This record gives sequence, C-alpha cells and structure tokens, in this order.
Amino acid sequence: MTRSELIQEIKSKRSFLCVGLDTDINKIPSFLLDYEDPVFEFNKRIIEATEDLCVAYKPNIAFYESRGVKGWESLQKTWQALPENCFSIADAKRGDIGNTAAMYASAFFDEASSGLGFDSITVAPYMGKDSVQPFIGVEGKWAIVLALTSNEGSADFQNIPDKDGRQLYEHVIGKVNAWGSPDNLMYVVGATRGEAFSNIRKHAPEHFLLVPGVGAQGGSLEDVCRYGMNSDCGLLVNATRSVIYASQGTDFAEKARQEALRLQQDMEKELIKAHII
Amino acid sequence: MTRSELIQEIKSKRSFLCVGLDTDINKIPSFLLDYEDPVFEFNKRIIEATEDLCVAYKPNIAFYESRGVKGWESLQKTWQALPENCFSIADAKRGDIGNTAAMYASAFFDEASSGLGFDSITVAPYMGKDSVQPFIGVEGKWAIVLALTSNEGSADFQNIPDKDGRQLYEHVIGKVNAWGSPDNLMYVVGATRGEAFSNIRKHAPEHFLLVPGVGAQGGSLEDVCRYGMNSDCGLLVNATRSVIYASQGTDFAEKARQEALRLQQDMEKELIKAHII
Repeated sequence: MTRSELIQEIKSKRSFLCVGLDTDINKIPSFLLDYEDPVFEFNKRIIEATEDLCVAYKPNIAFYESRGVKGWESLQKTWQALPENCFSIADAKRGDIGNTAAMYASAFFDEASSGLGFDSITVAPYMGKDSVQPFIGVEGKWAIVLALTSNEGSADFQNIPDKDGRQLYEHVIGKVNAWGSPDNLMYVVGATRGEAFSNIRKHAPEHFLLVPGVGAQGGSLEDVCRYGMNSDCGLLVNATRSVIYASQGTDFAEKARQEALRLQQDMEKELIKAHII
Repeated sequence: MTRSELIQEIKSKRSFLCVGLDTDINKIPSFLLDYEDPVFEFNKRIIEATEDLCVAYKPNIAFYESRGVKGWESLQKTWQALPENCFSIADAKRGDIGNTAAMYASAFFDEASSGLGFDSITVAPYMGKDSVQPFIGVEGKWAIVLALTSNEGSADFQNIPDKDGRQLYEHVIGKVNAWGSPDNLMYVVGATRGEAFSNIRKHAPEHFLLVPGVGAQGGSLEDVCRYGMNSDCGLLVNATRSVIYASQGTDFAEKARQEALRLQQDMEKELIKAHII
C-alpha cells in the first residue's frame, strides 16, 4: 500500500487505528479450541468485527512462531484474511546483515516465496544501513524502524546522549531518514513517551509514526495527537490487548468491535480538530 | 548445554568451530532438488560430514523463514538432526518487549511449544533489559547479544561515542553484563574488527564471544585468537559459506569436511599455543 492510499483510507474510515494481533492460544475464549485452527478462527472474527474501523492490522510474529509450524500456518491464513484496504504490518523487529535481511524481506514481503505478502515490517536498527535497505525500494513496501519504544527497557540504550546531548534514537532517525523517504519508511514511537513526540517531529516531520502503548500500556491518545500529528495525520496508533481481549466470552468479537469503535470515535475527533477531515 | 559442557567439548574436539547453516535452496547442489526436503537433506549431510570437527551449529533463521511453512519444517528437522554434543544457536537476532520476547523464547527454546529446543539465540539489544531477560535464567539456555558486528553498517550506530568517548557497543556490554552472567550470556563480535577484541576483553573478560566474519568476510583467525581468546578459550568462531558452499557438486559434503578440517587444525594450534589443551 502506498502512502497516498494509506492517507486516503485514514480519511475515508475517519480512523488511524491499527489493531495488534498478538494472539495467544492460552488467552482466547475456550470455545474456539474446538476449531481446527483456533488462532486463525479468533483472528478471522476479530478482523470481520473491526475492519471498517481500523486502517491497519499488525500480527506480532513472536506469538505465531512460539507454536512452530502450526503457528506459521495460522499466520499465513491470517495474512490471507486481511482486507485489501487495510495496511498490513509484520511486527517482527528483524535486523541482520544485508544478505540475511534480504531473506527476511522474502519471508514477509514475497508471497511466492513464503506465502506472506505484508506491506511492511518492523525493523531493529542496531546493525545499520545494510540491515534496513533490503526492506525498502519496492513501491508500496515499508520498513518501520524502531526509534523510541514504549517498554521498560527502552531507556537503557535509546536515550544515551552523545557529546552534544544528541540521544541514540535521534541518531537513528537522522541516519535512517537518508536511507529512504516518507514513502517507504516509518518509525516506531511509543505512546508512553508523549513528551518526546514534538522532538521527533523536528527530525521526521513527514514520516508516519507507528505508535504502540495506547490502552493497556497507559499512553494518552490526546497527547500523541497534540505532539505527533502532522497534516497527513502521520500516525498509526496501535491497540492490542484492550481490543482483542475485551471479553473472554463468546461475545469477544462484539466487545472488540465496541472498543475499536470507541477508539475510532476518539480518533475521528482528533482528525476533525486537525482539519484533516 | 552448560558452560562447563561447552568448554569440555572444545577441549575434547580440539576445536571452537561453529558451522553456520545459512542454507539457500538456490545455492545447494542441484541433484538435491529431487529430494522431498532439499534444504534438510543438504543440512543433514553437512552435519554428518562435520560434527566431529565443530562444537556448534548455527542455523540462520531468515533462510528458513523465507520459505514460510516449508522452511519451518526444514528448520525443525534440522534442529532434530543436530548432535547432542554440539551447542545449537538459533541465529535469529530477535529483540522485543518482555511479553513478546517470552514468546520468542518459547519459539526457539521450548520444544513442547514449537518443536525447537535450541541452546541459545542471538538477540538485538536496542530495546533494553526486558528484551533480553526472557532468554536467560533456565540452566543451559543462553542469550547471545549483538555487541560489535562485522557488517558494512555496523559503524552506523555501534561506534557512536558518548561524552566520555564510550561507544554504544561498550554501553551494551556494560549493561548486559549486569543482567546475567558468563554462564548464560555471550556476545557477538565480528572477526573483521580484530583490533576491538582487546578492548572487548576489558569489558567482558570471561564471556564467550560468537565471532562471525572469518573466511568469506575476510577476518583473521590468528588476530581473533591473539586479542580475544581467554583461559577457557572463550570463542566460538563461525564459518558459513567457506564450509557449506565449498563445492557445488555431488562432493559438497566431502569438500565441506575438508574446509572444516582445515579450520579445526588451525584452531587446534591456537588452543595448544594458549595451553588450553
């Protein structure tokens, strides 16, 4: 999906919601365990219940790999069930030398090779340029590079300042900007770091930001929009647990829809406030 | 495999060779394509031809994932074919928040969950403590954390100095040291950065180092040993392409053995020189 198509979807759905599919077979409603592929069955119903309210889906690859071959089968079926008008993100945090990164690009982008054809993949920057480049260059394919994450350990390295006070995540954005463009690069910026968004926008005014941490992790949507929204919206805000685990019962998909609708309505207000719609 | 078992294997095999299994279906001898699982067939013959000469095997997970479900089946069979007296490394470069890292630990360490039970996994440090911890704590399981890599882009971030001149990779070793011990942590240090080994040994005198870059990438085994070996050896030196692609013909396994033998003999000399055997 290209940047202009993504912006069009945001305007038409009046939403910039991304739904995380961190589907844990130990957390889904127990009646689904009678199905041949409970993880896929869960995902299919979540997708059907939310696809008009969100613009992106983000399967967390770890949750599928933890079940080995069976998990990859569920992942492949889930990817096939994603609607064409939603941006698809393989949340894989890959990062390796050039020839290996090219193999990961085949794994997540090349349907003929792997059965998966995601629009984008999350990428860890530690190994530098040749670990990012294989994911960009094909129109409509994106690398979403970790900049400032929302987890407990994020400050261990991401905030280390150089002699001029410039922190590692700022170096990451500065260098990665030069390797691609806002048409094929996004950054991951955690919602729990609201105060950092205005600084990030100085370094990356045009790029889309993928923002986890709203909901279960406690980030504020209003703060994220105040400091992080740009004239194209420029945000994909992810919610996972608050949506997909809204209920443990047979009504789980209906409750997921209610939570997604609540988020979409909040997002619509922000888009109107910013004169984007 | 525990640290003392690994040291025992090194002494008994007179080798600290790790063979990388970056098996690319487009590079293996064409006669293997007639087999049901050509990638596994290739790996099985490489393992049988080299298992007495090396102490570790390191499948590069990207090469398996690039083939989707079929690739995971080959990976699972390959893991089952690894000899018990060899240390097994899932070269996966994973790194994500705590609950996701725990899922990756299930994927690569927990045979009951995924069909894979590797001894260790390579880990990217960018997301900090909670992204590393789920991989350690179970006896005989290891996190092998990226410190200073051998690729072209390694200097983009790993060598950024702070105000005291301390580079990012030194911060990584300093912090990660505190999260575990030389019994469950190793570091990746590229052989092409020979001069850096004496500095790394100041920060991590006891840890094992996983060293890619000897062979095709041009690193010198002698330099690595001069600056990086400690009294327990403390090195796993990886070779991939020079071993597994030593020949494109039906003699590929025999040629792989010849190259592994050459490396083992060089390593034996270094172990004798250092009075380890």
